[in-house]
Amino acid sequence: MSILLTNDDGIYAPGLAALHRELRRLGEVAIVAPESEQSAVGHAISLMTPLRVKQVVLNGGVTGWAVSGTPADCVKIALAELLPEPPELVVSGINLGPNVGVNVLYSGTVSAATEAAILGVRGLAVSLNTYREADWHTAASLVRELIARVRDLPGWSPEVSLNVNLPALPRERIRGVRLTRQDTGPLVEHFQRRVDPREHVYYWLAEINERRGLELDTDYGALAAGYISITPIHHDLTHYPSIESLKGLNCQ
Amino acid sequence: MSILLTNDDGIYAPGLAALHRELRRLGEVAIVAPESEQSAVGHAISLMTPLRVKQVVLNGGVTGWAVSGTPADCVKIALAELLPEPPELVVSGINLGPNVGVNVLYSGTVSAATEAAILGVRGLAVSLNTYREADWHTAASLVRELIARVRDLPGWSPEVSLNVNLPALPRERIRGVRLTRQDTGPLVEHFQRRVDPREHVYYWLAEINERRGLELDTDYGALAAGYISITPIHHDLTHYPSIESLKGLNCQ
Repeated sequence: MSILLTNDDGIYAPGLAALHRELRRLGEVAIVAPESEQSAVGHAISLMTPLRVKQVVLNGGVTGWAVSGTPADCVKIALAELLPEPPELVVSGINLGPNVGVNVLYSGTVSAATEAAILGVRGLAVSLNTYREADWHTAASLVRELIARVRDLPGWSPEVSLNVNLPALPRERIRGVRLTRQDTGPLVEHFQRRVDPREHVYYWLAEINERRGLELDTDYGALAAGYISITPIHHDLTHYPSIESLKGLNCQ
Repeated sequence: MSILLTNDDGIYAPGLAALHRELRRLGEVAIVAPESEQSAVGHAISLMTPLRVKQVVLNGGVTGWAVSGTPADCVKIALAELLPEPPELVVSGINLGPNVGVNVLYSGTVSAATEAAILGVRGLAVSLNTYREADWHTAASLVRELIARVRDLPGWSPEVSLNVNLPALPRERIRGVRLTRQDTGPLVEHFQRRVDPREHVYYWLAEINERRGLELDTDYGALAAGYISITPIHHDLTHYPSIESLKGLNCQ
């Protein structure tokens, strides 16, 4: 199996290294990842600036390509310029922190998998539900087992990518796997208003992770309940019901 | 009518100024826009860096807030901190260049409208199908007329935003308005490989805009045929058919 590995935490992130150690048991793994952290870049791509690519040696002697861009840039340039042929799978992660609900829209991790789907390659994004003290080894081995399960599933269309979120729990406390839909509830967030050392005001977005009434068939709800959440996502943003309800707008 | 106006070309862009001149005929218009150009930032938001906001005076004496962030940041901070109450409508644009097909995913212009929808406010993104010699006045007056038509449409749900693309044609040559779906065909693009003055290689993404076989019910096809395209979009990326086809992944 040929795999392209990328992420949005940057090529030196421990989540990427752990995933590489596990995924190479499945086949050939090429690493093409941002040279610096790109969190919350969404599906940004670089148009106004060019990309530079350099080969780097990671801890353990593994070689990868560091790209001066976003996760979506990495997938584009890997497929167009760096890899001799398209991989069978693009894996993005493991992200430090979950990517559920409308946060999926802001996620560089997920955008790499979506970009793969746009280019006709199966994509899988992986995020871990913690911001500290991650057990990368357990998470990465879960991902390897999951890929072994999904890789030959006929129901997995290449135009659909999978957004996987892992509980930050010991393996024996994970309750199972749930296929979910994206939660669409509003984020509970606010701006902290602060004053800098020169007495200028600045604002910093802070999320308050206290959502109530989560549903178990959503990514957010399943993850909170201790399940591995897998959400099939795609890149057609059309709201089809509105094509009917707004059809009065058509005119010659 | 209260309107929040933003964009991704930056607060000093002529497309924003032209739209402001027209929209103020509809009601109160507040301007909160990026202080610098943010094209192709997708739905990026600023988490690692704080936001700064300053009041600026635009050509014609109009006051606006310039934000050191992305279009989505602008909508978030406008609603949370800057406006006394939520607007009835968020308008983003007018963008120099179209936002159709999978480019919608990369578009900062569209992400501002999507962010509005996430926050429960109707959003409308506007792009003009040219990269030069834009007739902003015609485009802006078309947008004003369009808003007058859509604002009271009961079929327009606040969770749905409208992605409007305008032909860069004289008014009399525009063929009408089409409600469309997002084209999902692949982009025809490649990386130009160049060498810098210090003999280092760099890459620059170039789109080749020659798509064939466009369908008239898509944003791309309708715009190319000379129609104003309106695509209803939403922020639930779930691919629902796959929840059925992949249900074998569920396990306890």
